[in-house]
Amino acid sequence: MQDNTRWLLPEGIDELLPPQAAKVEALRRQLLDLYNLWGYQLVYPPLVEHLNSLLTGAGSDLELQTFKLTDSLSGKLLGIRADTTPQVARIDAHKLGGTGVNRLCYHGTVLRTNPQGLSNGRAPAQIGIELFGHGGIESDAEILELMLETLAQSGLKNACLELGHVGIFRALVEHAQLDQSQEQQLMEILQRKAVTELKDLLQSWQLTEQTQQMLASLVDLYGDQSVIDKARKSLAAAPESLHVALDQLEAIVALLRRRHPNAQVIFDLGELRGYHYHTGVVFSAYLPGAGQAVAQGGRYDDIGKAFGCESRPATGFSTCLKTLMTLGQTEMPQQQTILAPVEGENAALEAAVKQFRQAGHVVIRLLPDQDMQQAEAGCSHQLVSADDGWQVKPLN
Amino acid sequence: MQDNTRWLLPEGIDELLPPQAAKVEALRRQLLDLYNLWGYQLVYPPLVEHLNSLLTGAGSDLELQTFKLTDSLSGKLLGIRADTTPQVARIDAHKLGGTGVNRLCYHGTVLRTNPQGLSNGRAPAQIGIELFGHGGIESDAEILELMLETLAQSGLKNACLELGHVGIFRALVEHAQLDQSQEQQLMEILQRKAVTELKDLLQSWQLTEQTQQMLASLVDLYGDQSVIDKARKSLAAAPESLHVALDQLEAIVALLRRRHPNAQVIFDLGELRGYHYHTGVVFSAYLPGAGQAVAQGGRYDDIGKAFGCESRPATGFSTCLKTLMTLGQTEMPQQQTILAPVEGENAALEAAVKQFRQAGHVVIRLLPDQDMQQAEAGCSHQLVSADDGWQVKPLN
Repeated sequence: MQDNTRWLLPEGIDELLPPQAAKVEALRRQLLDLYNLWGYQLVYPPLVEHLNSLLTGAGSDLELQTFKLTDSLSGKLLGIRADTTPQVARIDAHKLGGTGVNRLCYHGTVLRTNPQGLSNGRAPAQIGIELFGHGGIESDAEILELMLETLAQSGLKNACLELGHVGIFRALVEHAQLDQSQEQQLMEILQRKAVTELKDLLQSWQLTEQTQQMLASLVDLYGDQSVIDKARKSLAAAPESLHVALDQLEAIVALLRRRHPNAQVIFDLGELRGYHYHTGVVFSAYLPGAGQAVAQGGRYDDIGKAFGCESRPATGFSTCLKTLMTLGQTEMPQQQTILAPVEGENAALEAAVKQFRQAGHVVIRLLPDQDMQQAEAGCSHQLVSADDGWQVKPLN
Repeated sequence: MQDNTRWLLPEGIDELLPPQAAKVEALRRQLLDLYNLWGYQLVYPPLVEHLNSLLTGAGSDLELQTFKLTDSLSGKLLGIRADTTPQVARIDAHKLGGTGVNRLCYHGTVLRTNPQGLSNGRAPAQIGIELFGHGGIESDAEILELMLETLAQSGLKNACLELGHVGIFRALVEHAQLDQSQEQQLMEILQRKAVTELKDLLQSWQLTEQTQQMLASLVDLYGDQSVIDKARKSLAAAPESLHVALDQLEAIVALLRRRHPNAQVIFDLGELRGYHYHTGVVFSAYLPGAGQAVAQGGRYDDIGKAFGCESRPATGFSTCLKTLMTLGQTEMPQQQTILAPVEGENAALEAAVKQFRQAGHVVIRLLPDQDMQQAEAGCSHQLVSADDGWQVKPLN
């Protein structure tokens, strides 16, 4: 590595300098306070775990995304978390008893082998909430409301919610009696929205005309509330579970609209993100003109079973603080930055320094032999001696 | 791995559950606010870096402590930070210009291959401050004052400061004309305070009687302020730089005592922690009866050179938030936890929920079909309908 590239960070890894770091810290506090006021209790899952514990219940995507380490103490394989949600589910199941309703929130850096997901980086500052122990639409609506509130508090008020439901595709797969490999193939094509390829494939499988049409229609079932009615008609022959999924989607949005009548909602019934992990409604938030979701979540009811406990309903969402800070507008407290003279045996000056700090202002001590110009450059005010004691004056 | 051990965390790795996580978060905010008021700007260095960048200027101890990863994107070797200080020094030198006085603070998890240092764990929640660009004792005194203030705000008011100065041993090594291997051998024995072994070794090197006595006396130069005078006499024949070091130690403590007249200070002139890294005063804070330091720091003036920049004076300290939380007393804000009825179309109830949250209280919505007893167990109060609107009543 040459000298000039020596200090470059690895691809997709960033660091936060002033004032960006302070903005992320302010946003972090604001959001954790919000979750606290709604009853979500903070947990700090560990940065590393035994690999098999970390990947339990998670899909193969997560395995690929996880950096592995050998533990020199035990010789065992460790993983650095690539997603906090499975860790929080483990904590709910094994540490907090896994009964009743548990609301948890978390924040921390995760690390990924490849740039993917909410941020384009490999070390998102993940923040999120999870609600365990309730399978009804009311908990999905609560999560959605907090997702909107999170974006609003980050200065992203014009986000659009995109809702899907993995039960729709699952019901059609069951109806068409597809095997696992066909399900996987179909899912992959649907995620790419490759229409021609999809139709060719469906035809090659010699499904009934009706089944082919239903599966192919998923690509087009994208848009406003009218999509639900359209789906009720075009997918009328599908199993009952599909219609339950449509009813759930409609009911969740109705609940959300009680307090957010103007929320922009788009339905995408072909959405299959996290298909192997999710069990019900899935949702993402997009900003106008941005191709990448800024927050995403959904229901994942079977998580408890994976952890060897009772099956446990769960729903939640997560986002990245750095992404929110970059795209949004973080309000920072207004502080004076006051330069104080070199420390001397002056009790009145010491009292003034203390007093201004207690009032919430930054007071920076000038150090002996420090360059005055450089010291003043970082300050908005200075402490000066006046007839009636030490006073704060603006620096020009 | 058997089922019952599957959810155990790796040795030395812990997770924080409620209410401990909230306490660590509260302490984190309190301390970062303190550093901000003194002019220390927050930075977030990355969790991973290229290994050669991460280990630049750091000793071989840190190399042993650093987990290594292969970057699948670049094929290069990455390291997970085992200490944040060298990262902050790199940021000062390369990102923030490396001129004038820079005050920086940071917080984040570091990961170590072996349990060592401030916490007994392998994933300390490191928090600390660094002051770059000033070589005088005033900046050391500022760091020491903030270290004491950090402990006081964590509820650890009776900590004892232990001060040393690596310039003392360095001067004696130079005086005795020891080679590097001898220096290393001596240092190792001094750190273990193995007196007999030390005397045998010194004798075997055929040093003058005076030099032997001076080097051996380091083990005993431990105690209150009188140690400095004792050292001035017993090390009178040592080079001038040793006497400069003694003067610095005395002057730093005098500065500290201006605002902390009752600070408990112990001198340990044989202290050699971080000898290869530090260049001047080194300090640790101990609690009565605890063998392990709870905070430590010191001066490391040559750091800039290691980064290919100008040599740059630097001093700082760090500690672990989890250790402070466990040993100390974190004051938590008093909050009511109010259970609100299931959401319905009741505008007055919605307004009440909003109002109590705005007033800083936790309001938890009961969910349909939720077990009432379980829901009440987590709450101190409930929202009940009264003649004059919704009221908060204590839960029995």
